Amino acid sequence: MRAEIIAVGTEILLGDIVNTNAQMISLGLDELGIDVFYQTVVGDNPERLKEVLEIARGRSDLIITTGGLGPTLDDLTRETIAEAFGKKLVLHKPSLRRITAFFDQIGKQMTQNNVKQAMLPAGCKVLDNDWGTAPGCAFEADGVHVLMLPGPPKECTPMFHTAGMAYLAKLAGGVIVSHNIRIFGMGESAMEDRLHELMESSTNPTLAPYAKDGECLVRVTAKAETIEVAERLLEPVVRQVCDTLGDVVYGIDVESMEHAMAKLLTEKGLTLSVAESCTGGLLSKRITDVSGASKFYKGGACTYCNEIKMKVLGVKKETLDEFTAVSSQTAREMAQGIAMAYGTDLGIGITGYAGPDGGEDGTPAGTVYIGLYYQGKTQVRRILSPRGRERARWDAANNAFDMILRVVEGRKLI
Amino acid sequence: MRAEIIAVGTEILLGDIVNTNAQMISLGLDELGIDVFYQTVVGDNPERLKEVLEIARGRSDLIITTGGLGPTLDDLTRETIAEAFGKKLVLHKPSLRRITAFFDQIGKQMTQNNVKQAMLPAGCKVLDNDWGTAPGCAFEADGVHVLMLPGPPKECTPMFHTAGMAYLAKLAGGVIVSHNIRIFGMGESAMEDRLHELMESSTNPTLAPYAKDGECLVRVTAKAETIEVAERLLEPVVRQVCDTLGDVVYGIDVESMEHAMAKLLTEKGLTLSVAESCTGGLLSKRITDVSGASKFYKGGACTYCNEIKMKVLGVKKETLDEFTAVSSQTAREMAQGIAMAYGTDLGIGITGYAGPDGGEDGTPAGTVYIGLYYQGKTQVRRILSPRGRERARWDAANNAFDMILRVVEGRKLI
Repeated sequence: MRAEIIAVGTEILLGDIVNTNAQMISLGLDELGIDVFYQTVVGDNPERLKEVLEIARGRSDLIITTGGLGPTLDDLTRETIAEAFGKKLVLHKPSLRRITAFFDQIGKQMTQNNVKQAMLPAGCKVLDNDWGTAPGCAFEADGVHVLMLPGPPKECTPMFHTAGMAYLAKLAGGVIVSHNIRIFGMGESAMEDRLHELMESSTNPTLAPYAKDGECLVRVTAKAETIEVAERLLEPVVRQVCDTLGDVVYGIDVESMEHAMAKLLTEKGLTLSVAESCTGGLLSKRITDVSGASKFYKGGACTYCNEIKMKVLGVKKETLDEFTAVSSQTAREMAQGIAMAYGTDLGIGITGYAGPDGGEDGTPAGTVYIGLYYQGKTQVRRILSPRGRERARWDAANNAFDMILRVVEGRKLI
Repeated sequence: MRAEIIAVGTEILLGDIVNTNAQMISLGLDELGIDVFYQTVVGDNPERLKEVLEIARGRSDLIITTGGLGPTLDDLTRETIAEAFGKKLVLHKPSLRRITAFFDQIGKQMTQNNVKQAMLPAGCKVLDNDWGTAPGCAFEADGVHVLMLPGPPKECTPMFHTAGMAYLAKLAGGVIVSHNIRIFGMGESAMEDRLHELMESSTNPTLAPYAKDGECLVRVTAKAETIEVAERLLEPVVRQVCDTLGDVVYGIDVESMEHAMAKLLTEKGLTLSVAESCTGGLLSKRITDVSGASKFYKGGACTYCNEIKMKVLGVKKETLDEFTAVSSQTAREMAQGIAMAYGTDLGIGITGYAGPDGGEDGTPAGTVYIGLYYQGKTQVRRILSPRGRERARWDAANNAFDMILRVVEGRKLI
C-alpha cells in the first residue's frame, strides 16, 4: 500500500510552523508496514488542494490529510475532499452534540460556524476527536482510502495513534520491523564502501545508511507476516553488518552515545565527573540529557580560564606555562584533577580550540585534546574537527563518550 | 513568483527526521516576497523524483530542492535533476579541490565516490558549501529557476541564508530589510493583543510575530528600492513596537539572550560564573556558544549531587537538610558560593526538578529556582515550566540570562 500525507495549511507554507504531523504519521505508517511515498503541503486554497488531491489519487492508495477541518472560512478540506471524491456532506448528529457539549463545558456560546465541523462525507467512518472540536473521518472511494485529521498536533497525534492507526491496521496486514546499528569513528562513505555488496544484494531486509552529527547508523528493515518472522529475517543481516564494520559499532537500537554510556556506567556501578574547557558545559549538558544520569554522574567543572583550571582541578602552573592550556598534558591533568576533586571512578578532561580562532602558535581551530582517567591510568586522544565551533564541540563530546565506552568495555582505544 | 520546495530523502518519509529545511526556506522566501505554494517530500528514488519534478515545473517558477547531494549510491538528486532539465553534469574542479582539501585536513583518505559531489550541471551558479562537502547550485531552464541544496540542516541553513538568498534576491528585484525585536517575559497572545492594531494597519513595513523556545520576536520587514529607503520606513515602526511592549524587549537584531548578555558583560567589564544542578551544564554550554565568552566567563560547576554542592560551592548541610536541594535557599547559596569560589562579579545558582519526576514532597516537575548574586546581594526567581525536561532546562537558562540583563542594566527584576 502506497501512502501520501497531505498537510493543508498556509501557515506551514509561510514557515510559521513546521510540519511535525507528517513525521508523526510517517512513523506510525512505518510501524504498520505501509510505505509513505510522498508528503505534500498545500495552502488553504480549494483549487490547489483539489489539484493536489487529483495527483495523489493517481499515485497513492492511501491519502491522509491533516488540517483545514476547523470552523473558519479558510477551513476548506472537508468540502474540497467531498467534492473531489463525489461524496455528499451530511450532518453527523453525535459529533454536533459533542461539539455543543464542549462549548457548554467551557461556558461559551457555540457560534453557528461550528456546525460545519459536524458535516461529514456520507457513509464515512467517523474518528472521534476527544482533544478538540473537529472530528476526523475515513472512507474509501474508487479503491483509494482517505483519512482526514485535524491540524493541531495536540488533536492530530492522539487521534491518529488511536482511531486512525486502528482503522489502518485492519487494511494493511503484515508488519515492518527495523533495527538501528549505531556507529562512531567511521565516515559514511567508508561505511558504505564496506557494506556496498550487502546493500546491493539485500531486498528483505533492506539496509539504509545514515550520517548525522558526526556519527552514522545503518537501518536494517524487514517486512513479514508477523514480528517473529521479521526478526528471524533480521537477525543474520544485523550480525553480518556488525561483523563487517567491526568495533566501530557502539550499539543497536540505542538512542545516542550518551544513552549507551549512561546504560553502561549504571550497570557497572561506576561514577563519572568531567572537566571542560572548550566544550564549555556541552559534555555535562549531554550527559544530563539522559533522565536518571544522577545514578552515575556526580558533576562537572567548566574551567574557562587558567586560574580556575589550577584552582579547581589542580592543573600545574608549569604545565600551562610549558605546554599551554591546549595540550595533551593539560587534558591529562584536567581528567585526573576532576576525578580526584569529585571523587569519581572516571574523569574526563577536554581542552581545545573550538574556533573560530586557533592557537597563537598556529594550532588550527578544531584541535581538541580529550583525556580520560580510569583505574589509575590516563589516556589522551587528539582530534581535529574543522567544521566550525558548534561541530568541534559536539565532536569532542562524542569522542569522550566513545573513549569511555571503549575503555570500560575493554575495547581497544583508537 | 511561485515557489515549490522539494525535499529528497527516504529518512523523512520514514519519519526518522522532520523536514525543518522546508520551514527554514519558507521563512526566507517569505522575507524575499516569494510565495511558496507547495512543499513536497519524495524518497531517494529517481523515478518518483523525476515525476515530482515534472509536476513542479508545470506549476512553479522556482524549485528549491534539499537533500540527495551526498556521496552515496542513494544520493541521486544531482543526476535526476540534470536529466529532467536537459543539463549535462560536468566536473567543477574548485569544488573537487575543496572536497579533497577537506579530507586532507581531517587526515582521512577521500574515497572515489566523493568525486561525484563535484559533478554539477553545466553553466550553473555554484553555491559553495563551507559547512560540509557537497556544493549546491542554481540554474535556469525553460523559465524555471532551480536551486539545489544539501540535506543536513547544518549545511542547508547557512548556505540558503547566504548564497541562496543572495541569488534569489537578485531575481526578485528591490531589497528587503528586516529588524528582529526580541522579547522575553511576555507570551505570544499577549504580545499580539498589544500589537494588534499596528499589525493590521501596517503594510510596508509588515509586522510578523513569532514564538520560539520560550521567547518571542517581532519581525519588522520593509520592501523598497534601496536599503536606505527601507531603513527610513522601518525606523518609526520599530520604535513604536518597542514603546508598546515596554521593558520585555531585550534587544534588536541580537542573535539570542546569551549574545545580548555576553555583549553587556563584556562592555561593562564584569565577570560571571555559574553553578548548575538541574540544567546540568546547559547554561554554561549556552554561554560558551558565544564566541569570545572567555572575556567575561570564568567557568562553572555542575553540582549534580549534594556532596559536591557542599564541597565545591560551600552550600550548608543544614540548608540542604532543612529546605532540600531544590529550594530558594539552596539556589541562593549556590549563586553566592560559585561567585566566591571562582572570584567573579556575578554568580548564578540553578536548582530544580527538570523532570520527568518532581519532588517527593509534591513539588511539581518543572519547578526551578534561579539565584543571582551581584554586588553583595542575592535575588532568587522561582519558575514553573511544565512542558518536559528539555524545555524546563531551557527556560531556566533563559531566566538566568533575563535576570542578569535586568540587574546589570538596572531594569526592574520581575
